[in-house]
Amino acid sequence: MSSGLNIKKIAMIGCGSMGGGMALLFAENGIEVSLQDPSVEAMDLIIETAKKDEIPAERLKKYTDYESLCASLDSPKVFFFSLPHGSVGDTVLDGLTPYLKKNDIIIDAGNEHFTNTERRQGKCATRGIRYVGMGVSGGYQAARQGPSMCPGGDDSTLDQVMPLLEMAAAKDEKGRPCVGKAGTGAWQIMNVGLGMNYEDIGGVFGEWNKDGPLRNTFLISIGALICRTHSSDYTHEEKGKKDDHVLALVQDKVVQDITGEEGTGIWSNTEAVTEHVPAPTLTEAHYLRLASSNRDARIKAREVMKADFDPQPLNLEGEEKDKFIKDLRTATYLACLCSYIQGINIIEQADKHNMWNIDYAAVLQIWAAGCIIQADYIAELLRPEFNDYQNQKSMKLLFNETVAKEIKDGVPSLRRVCARGTESDHVILALSATLEYIKFMTNTSLPTPFYEAELDFFGGHMFDIKGEAGTGGPTEGKHHYEWRPA
Amino acid sequence: MSSGLNIKKIAMIGCGSMGGGMALLFAENGIEVSLQDPSVEAMDLIIETAKKDEIPAERLKKYTDYESLCASLDSPKVFFFSLPHGSVGDTVLDGLTPYLKKNDIIIDAGNEHFTNTERRQGKCATRGIRYVGMGVSGGYQAARQGPSMCPGGDDSTLDQVMPLLEMAAAKDEKGRPCVGKAGTGAWQIMNVGLGMNYEDIGGVFGEWNKDGPLRNTFLISIGALICRTHSSDYTHEEKGKKDDHVLALVQDKVVQDITGEEGTGIWSNTEAVTEHVPAPTLTEAHYLRLASSNRDARIKAREVMKADFDPQPLNLEGEEKDKFIKDLRTATYLACLCSYIQGINIIEQADKHNMWNIDYAAVLQIWAAGCIIQADYIAELLRPEFNDYQNQKSMKLLFNETVAKEIKDGVPSLRRVCARGTESDHVILALSATLEYIKFMTNTSLPTPFYEAELDFFGGHMFDIKGEAGTGGPTEGKHHYEWRPA
Repeated sequence: MSSGLNIKKIAMIGCGSMGGGMALLFAENGIEVSLQDPSVEAMDLIIETAKKDEIPAERLKKYTDYESLCASLDSPKVFFFSLPHGSVGDTVLDGLTPYLKKNDIIIDAGNEHFTNTERRQGKCATRGIRYVGMGVSGGYQAARQGPSMCPGGDDSTLDQVMPLLEMAAAKDEKGRPCVGKAGTGAWQIMNVGLGMNYEDIGGVFGEWNKDGPLRNTFLISIGALICRTHSSDYTHEEKGKKDDHVLALVQDKVVQDITGEEGTGIWSNTEAVTEHVPAPTLTEAHYLRLASSNRDARIKAREVMKADFDPQPLNLEGEEKDKFIKDLRTATYLACLCSYIQGINIIEQADKHNMWNIDYAAVLQIWAAGCIIQADYIAELLRPEFNDYQNQKSMKLLFNETVAKEIKDGVPSLRRVCARGTESDHVILALSATLEYIKFMTNTSLPTPFYEAELDFFGGHMFDIKGEAGTGGPTEGKHHYEWRPA
Repeated sequence: MSSGLNIKKIAMIGCGSMGGGMALLFAENGIEVSLQDPSVEAMDLIIETAKKDEIPAERLKKYTDYESLCASLDSPKVFFFSLPHGSVGDTVLDGLTPYLKKNDIIIDAGNEHFTNTERRQGKCATRGIRYVGMGVSGGYQAARQGPSMCPGGDDSTLDQVMPLLEMAAAKDEKGRPCVGKAGTGAWQIMNVGLGMNYEDIGGVFGEWNKDGPLRNTFLISIGALICRTHSSDYTHEEKGKKDDHVLALVQDKVVQDITGEEGTGIWSNTEAVTEHVPAPTLTEAHYLRLASSNRDARIKAREVMKADFDPQPLNLEGEEKDKFIKDLRTATYLACLCSYIQGINIIEQADKHNMWNIDYAAVLQIWAAGCIIQADYIAELLRPEFNDYQNQKSMKLLFNETVAKEIKDGVPSLRRVCARGTESDHVILALSATLEYIKFMTNTSLPTPFYEAELDFFGGHMFDIKGEAGTGGPTEGKHHYEWRPA
């Protein structure tokens, strides 16, 4: 780690909200940043913001062609890419290539799909150019203030760029740098099911974020803020009264990433399916996002169906209501915890399959601050298991006694919320998917003998027989029966 | 269609259960079949079976090298591939290529992934060789008796091979050739929840298959048979009594396709995610299959957690029980119907994206017989919409009034089954995913304003505002709010 380059100049290629935030952050830390973007306005906006933030003007300069951009840098040249994923990175790399020399470094901060990263790493390797793929999380504000960064490349290159990245990265609660969505169901159940107003819901999220199993959970903490955000620009009538909660005017439509920018949501779910990892909480949440985006289709379907499956009040008051809010907290916690478990299981399978040799303790560190999935209580809960990975070579979070106990203790609450939500037509897909996940991952009398017999009937699929030894792990079946002789 | 070749000889490359079944079927219909497989035993088994089935011996000959195999055929040569998907087809194609001439035809019946098919079609096109990708369904018994076949290639080639395929294909109830999983939750709820024995459950499935919304549904019909299948080879003690139901000894473990043969399950779900089509019923069913396969992991997790979430009896008798069984039928029907809707929506999106110009009326025909997803009532219900595709250029099944009414009328039953199943710890993931699907696809006040505000908070994602015109379809958002000024 001590062999770091003394990097004084970098280029930031791509100056949108993420690239701009990172450029300002580096400049603020004394680095000279050469900006490059097809939009001169985008570059001007960064330079203007720098002026407001009292960053010396000579630290940010704009360039409109690769030749002058490259001439502005020291050797080895260090580039950051903050580009949309996909073919754009290839085009930029091709354009830069004539000006690149051996040992130049490209840090691709575009949350690129790993197959694209690996392809470009291969392309660069033959020229001696060092290409580092880097995941960046925390959103555009964190990009400005210190994002969670997760670089990947060869060890010697990483050693050289780490000091630069650590300077810019988010720091966790103990000051360790972190180079490295939740509560939607609960929100509507409180609002419609329990008749609570936005201020009160914000208060509950604030409490949840303070201590207990959702302590310092980024998405809960911003949820508390969002529920209590007012603006005179959003003043409107609500139930005959004036209201200025911004959230009250937000449409029930996650705007479609029609540019395909939600790649990470797509990739994590396709990897889950491909790598044989059940990840129903993650996938259902993604499907809600997709369905949500096409509001026209929902309006039409509702009209044609004359659908009346709207969430209903639960008619709970006083102690009963307080008890239900506690159940809701536990249910939300289990959905978050199981999302973590499903996510890490996907990563582990992909790691083994692609031979990445992931350092899991470092992954947890990346997740500990500056990252949108930050969840301190859960991170602490999982830390021993993550730290122990090198010994057990397997991240079996469901086999950890402490984790298992948390889940078991939470099931009665989750079950009550799901039953109640089902009866009263609340949209609880991530919660009910979590409950089903817990059941089917720990059940030893699944309904699958019937499933298996059907596959054997028409597919000659083969099956295992109850009580036989050695048939526990994934194997091919040993028995076939001619259910209906041909 | 009348320009069909008079094909008298074919080669079958790959002589497993599917290839063997098709080889026998063609031979029975007067075609001379040249067999080729690395396993001489596999070829011998087909020749032996032919003898038993009184198929003239000269119709089936085995070949161990490509040169003599190709010499045995007329010109243009016609090959069927019945191979595992993936790289095997490339190896075989490379091996055959030296002996191929312009206009030779390869029909790949291996349920190959479309990207592999398209790659090989491109490879062959430059040599004037015609490569047809063909989906085959109905399992190994149907392969012998008449499978559901779905060929894809250029029109003139298809015209030439259709007479051959139609001769072999399954015929639907009206004699039209069809060139072209359900009930698992219900089974365990009846068995454990309602305390019914296998014979009675088989009886219920038999009734469901006879008329009503599950009329002639392949998976229900074989389910009835499976529940009532006895064999002295499977005699065992059950609750102190002798029992010989085969199903009673089948392990709760869908044996893992460790060879990756369940490609179609993986591909349909990755396409759903990639093409922005919510398909929760399909994906949850696939996740159950995955979780089921690793029984060792479930045993371990159950032990560590001391999990006691086993399905419980519902304590229903008499009229109440009969009413619940009716609910169960409706719930199973909606899960099947929504699986169809999700499946066709995936196909439509992929069709538009890849410009395949799918003939939807023909797809329904393919599904009408010889196919494991055959469901006559559902096919009839959807037929007008499928036939009308050329006019509306959109397969909006949820916008069809008849379909919508069926779904709406079924929701109360599905809701009762899901609520009851949740309370009593039954594994009902496909059913509850279906209920959530119906709700979120027809709801116009989803909980997603909160989701959207969170994305805008940390991602500058932008959102739409309630009441604004023109914000219904998938779009990028128009508004951003600085929830917490940077």
